[in-house]
Amino acid sequence: MIEAALFGAGRIGRIHAGNLARLPGARLKYVADVNQAAADELALRHGAKVATVDAALADRTIGAVVIASNTDTHADLLLRAAAAGKAIFCEKPVDLDLARAVSAAGAVDRAGVTCLIGFQRRYDPTFAAVKARLAAGEIGEPEMLIVTSRDPGAPPVDYIKVSGGIFKDMLIHDFDICRWILDDEAATVYATGSCLTDPAIEAAGDIDSTTVTIRTHRGRLAQINTSRRAAYGYDQRFEVLGAKGMLQAGNHRPTEVAAHTAMNVSHDKPEHFFLERYRVAYANEMAHFIDAVAGGKPLNTTIADGVKALELADAATRSWRERRIVEL
Amino acid sequence: MIEAALFGAGRIGRIHAGNLARLPGARLKYVADVNQAAADELALRHGAKVATVDAALADRTIGAVVIASNTDTHADLLLRAAAAGKAIFCEKPVDLDLARAVSAAGAVDRAGVTCLIGFQRRYDPTFAAVKARLAAGEIGEPEMLIVTSRDPGAPPVDYIKVSGGIFKDMLIHDFDICRWILDDEAATVYATGSCLTDPAIEAAGDIDSTTVTIRTHRGRLAQINTSRRAAYGYDQRFEVLGAKGMLQAGNHRPTEVAAHTAMNVSHDKPEHFFLERYRVAYANEMAHFIDAVAGGKPLNTTIADGVKALELADAATRSWRERRIVEL
Amino acid sequence: MIEAALFGAGRIGRIHAGNLARLPGARLKYVADVNQAAADELALRHGAKVATVDAALADRTIGAVVIASNTDTHADLLLRAAAAGKAIFCEKPVDLDLARAVSAAGAVDRAGVTCLIGFQRRYDPTFAAVKARLAAGEIGEPEMLIVTSRDPGAPPVDYIKVSGGIFKDMLIHDFDICRWILDDEAATVYATGSCLTDPAIEAAGDIDSTTVTIRTHRGRLAQINTSRRAAYGYDQRFEVLGAKGMLQAGNHRPTEVAAHTAMNVSHDKPEHFFLERYRVAYANEMAHFIDAVAGGKPLNTTIADGVKALELADAATRSWRERRIVEL
Amino acid sequence: MIEAALFGAGRIGRIHAGNLARLPGARLKYVADVNQAAADELALRHGAKVATVDAALADRTIGAVVIASNTDTHADLLLRAAAAGKAIFCEKPVDLDLARAVSAAGAVDRAGVTCLIGFQRRYDPTFAAVKARLAAGEIGEPEMLIVTSRDPGAPPVDYIKVSGGIFKDMLIHDFDICRWILDDEAATVYATGSCLTDPAIEAAGDIDSTTVTIRTHRGRLAQINTSRRAAYGYDQRFEVLGAKGMLQAGNHRPTEVAAHTAMNVSHDKPEHFFLERYRVAYANEMAHFIDAVAGGKPLNTTIADGVKALELADAATRSWRERRIVEL
Repeated sequence: MIEAALFGAGRIGRIHAGNLARLPGARLKYVADVNQAAADELALRHGAKVATVDAALADRTIGAVVIASNTDTHADLLLRAAAAGKAIFCEKPVDLDLARAVSAAGAVDRAGVTCLIGFQRRYDPTFAAVKARLAAGEIGEPEMLIVTSRDPGAPPVDYIKVSGGIFKDMLIHDFDICRWILDDEAATVYATGSCLTDPAIEAAGDIDSTTVTIRTHRGRLAQINTSRRAAYGYDQRFEVLGAKGMLQAGNHRPTEVAAHTAMNVSHDKPEHFFLERYRVAYANEMAHFIDAVAGGKPLNTTIADGVKALELADAATRSWRERRIVEL
Repeated sequence: MIEAALFGAGRIGRIHAGNLARLPGARLKYVADVNQAAADELALRHGAKVATVDAALADRTIGAVVIASNTDTHADLLLRAAAAGKAIFCEKPVDLDLARAVSAAGAVDRAGVTCLIGFQRRYDPTFAAVKARLAAGEIGEPEMLIVTSRDPGAPPVDYIKVSGGIFKDMLIHDFDICRWILDDEAATVYATGSCLTDPAIEAAGDIDSTTVTIRTHRGRLAQINTSRRAAYGYDQRFEVLGAKGMLQAGNHRPTEVAAHTAMNVSHDKPEHFFLERYRVAYANEMAHFIDAVAGGKPLNTTIADGVKALELADAATRSWRERRIVEL
Repeated sequence: MIEAALFGAGRIGRIHAGNLARLPGARLKYVADVNQAAADELALRHGAKVATVDAALADRTIGAVVIASNTDTHADLLLRAAAAGKAIFCEKPVDLDLARAVSAAGAVDRAGVTCLIGFQRRYDPTFAAVKARLAAGEIGEPEMLIVTSRDPGAPPVDYIKVSGGIFKDMLIHDFDICRWILDDEAATVYATGSCLTDPAIEAAGDIDSTTVTIRTHRGRLAQINTSRRAAYGYDQRFEVLGAKGMLQAGNHRPTEVAAHTAMNVSHDKPEHFFLERYRVAYANEMAHFIDAVAGGKPLNTTIADGVKALELADAATRSWRERRIVEL
Repeated sequence: MIEAALFGAGRIGRIHAGNLARLPGARLKYVADVNQAAADELALRHGAKVATVDAALADRTIGAVVIASNTDTHADLLLRAAAAGKAIFCEKPVDLDLARAVSAAGAVDRAGVTCLIGFQRRYDPTFAAVKARLAAGEIGEPEMLIVTSRDPGAPPVDYIKVSGGIFKDMLIHDFDICRWILDDEAATVYATGSCLTDPAIEAAGDIDSTTVTIRTHRGRLAQINTSRRAAYGYDQRFEVLGAKGMLQAGNHRPTEVAAHTAMNVSHDKPEHFFLERYRVAYANEMAHFIDAVAGGKPLNTTIADGVKALELADAATRSWRERRIVEL
């Protein structure tokens, strides 16, 4: 039985708490949050106690911590949890600043603790199946990857201003997908984009529509297209071409109803947003973490992955700002 | 080169004339129709001559005739064409009256002429592929067949009154599909139905919605459902279950556009009606006929098939009227 | 907070226990089963106690009982739970014997207790969406319903022998779908079938492949086709035609991967069997039950529905055995 | 009645001849080809005469010419046909050399003759429907376009050596799609690629896998991905995102059979290659040309479009070779 502490009782923290609570091999012991009411409520729901981060880290029965607090606290909490020898589940990104992320990764490595970074998409049943079938050789080596990643709508501009920009905030997941699926590191990154949905985003110094191209050392190619707005919901697809065929990961939809009318034949739109689409992925991710901690098994997504994705986000940001191809 | 005469210059006659004209191995020499203007126009378009049926049958260069005139002329024309030793392509049904159909079939057999009955669905690329894959053993022996057959809208009630009833007029094709796919003859037929779309159809002594069940001698099962009205267009599907799987024949649609909107994800409705859906089937059917005539090869749909389908339509009509299971 | 007792710790009992445990408004207090080990294990997992049925019914804090024991115990437990004034969640069928089912329903009615019968399909997201959209008038009044219901494989013949026959064991769900979707009661039932997958089923006096036709008082039509064997998994679809269109409920599949190879373009097979396909339905069903008990709200599936579905199963069995159309 | 001459009796010339022959308003009078046997056979099939280009251009009854000869003859034939005042249907590309293409376009413009360039994809039912629905405002202004364009297999390396390179040979169509759908001209082009399928292509100085990004003056974005090899056939898709949704143009497939087996649920691969996929497009294109010539109506694809697509191909080639972003 792994006893765990959760740092952060917001939206994603509540998801992780619920998933932890459902696992037979884990128990949520502490919840910490600067928002006392949120911590109280979440602790009550799962029979946990409210505690400070210090107290939780000091409790030797705590084997694992889940970092789901604000991004700007991640690096510090990673350092402290690593110092305390805890297994760590940390939400992405490691940090918005690459140097700080590298430093946190170094500390984690030196401490030798298990550390999962929350790229939950790798645990999505559809995405994971593509990866497994690709790894099994079903279509040969990957040659080209096309990633479509569109949000149903933009977050508030106040959030965008502190988000680190679209490449770090939104595409960080897509960069991870590229590394994971192409199984090779980027040699060049090219990014361009526009502000097409809301001038306020441009005024905030960001863009809402991007196209990114990655070429790896072995010459494999990836294209990512993203938008902050898709009228039809959360669009999360990718397809990978190999010598023997193509594997596509399609959207999930709430129901399998088909309506035939005088107008057309229609199906449901995709699941609305990430909490719906990645509901199972989040549960699988937490189960994988607890399994790995309990069994001393390797993790699917490590802090090194978190750093690498951030490097790509950094490179894409520079490519866009400086209007040039960035070499890595 | 097969020289052919066409009897009937109406809607379906024009389809057959166009398909004949496109075949390198055939030539349309004569067009006959009681509607002189229709005959003139169609003959002109394809460089043929207008002729009487008698004259066409008397011309020894004519190797084949296409009977696309009114249903009540089929049996007579079959007899005359058979007597003249011509290869015959005859639109379904052979006749609305089973005894007359049997008699025509006998005459054709005695004359030893090639005679194709126009069950064009067997020549549809999708339907033909299901049959071929079934015959190749892909799903084992057929066990159950579900046929969905719905028209976009009912014909005029004046037509319905002389149509022979929905089972002979509309389901005759579906009965042929049952025999073709199940590869076995019916032992029992049960039919029921309702008038749900237009009371005028009921007033005309007919129904517009039917459900038919066929059980064959070997215990294979078929269900047919039909309606005179499908708001979404012409619905022509079937699926066959075997020990090793299922093959489905789906609808065709005009384009492969998918529209994703705030409402749903939609595709085109099925092709509107039989002229659109079975456009390729009609062309394939005529090509098959000309090939068979030219090469002395066997036909996929014979006058015996026409009689058998009519027997089922007759049995279904009795089952519905007399509210009983009919044994064959 | 509703305190509940579970009778039956087998496969379906474990599903219900897990779903109960996840509901904030309910608590599983007792588990009863003749298999002591199964009861112990399940009680332990959910922090419940093992108890006898008598003890559980005698505990005045128990507001609800879940009957998930063998079919032949349902009627007796219904009577006892009703007498004890408990809200009841009872797995289908009420009983294999119609008279006993009617009697149990009478007792429940007289006791005035809430009683849900476990037709979980009504709580499936896809099926429920079709019903809701139909009720909202999206395609007008229902005219025809086609139900496809196929199991991946047959249960052991020893089970089949005591199952009550395919119509009561397997089609009971489909009969409920017919009543629910057509919103009208059957006037006639016709059933036929064959044994096509395993002669041992025939030797046991049963069949494995059936076709059923229902015509309602208002002339609405339903066709059901079932098989004990579908090589491709659990096939659970229906489609309903109305004046303004058609709504189809399609199969669910484990992932949304599409594989394009030199052979074809393929997707996953449907979810393997009912525990997978109706996982969400079972959870929704239990939530609905607890909500209804807590809020005094009406139920979507009552014991009257259980009786009515059994009447149809009885009629279908007679139709098949006696080779006749059965009027209701 | 438009009398036409065809220059080039090869594969694509035969397609155009057949399509011309089927049009009521046109007649194929002459066929010219340096391969005398090919010209003879094609002329015979359609009741045309073999003639030299000079003789055909000198015949004043000839209203239109179809240029389907080798690419290196296009510019010269365009000049001569324009000088002779003929309406021109010219296969893409105008020329591999941009300067020569511009010069030919100038001559055509000065002569004031009708000139269609064979971007047949614009006449594909699916692609044309997307364009029409986009133009009708169904999804608002286009923001992003993703084009997937993959051949089933590479042409012989000897062809590749004289093809002008993958951007001019293969992507020329995709560049035309970008201009047509985004309704804006490119401001920047970025292209990269690899040789992943056959080292012989690299040895020939070309690549087989490319990713191209176009940003237009209004900030609209396009990504193109291509490969010379798709094991599953000819992959021809695009999708366009707008403020109100997305329109996708999907692949066409030979039949609508779905096979459900113990392994998966599969459909046909896409149509094998361009002759199958664009069969209807070619027919529509020729009909559009003849209509335009007969009615003096504007064309959907002009020589200016041919030049613009070539400019993009040129820019992409430079971007790839020089590893830089090219501004236009």
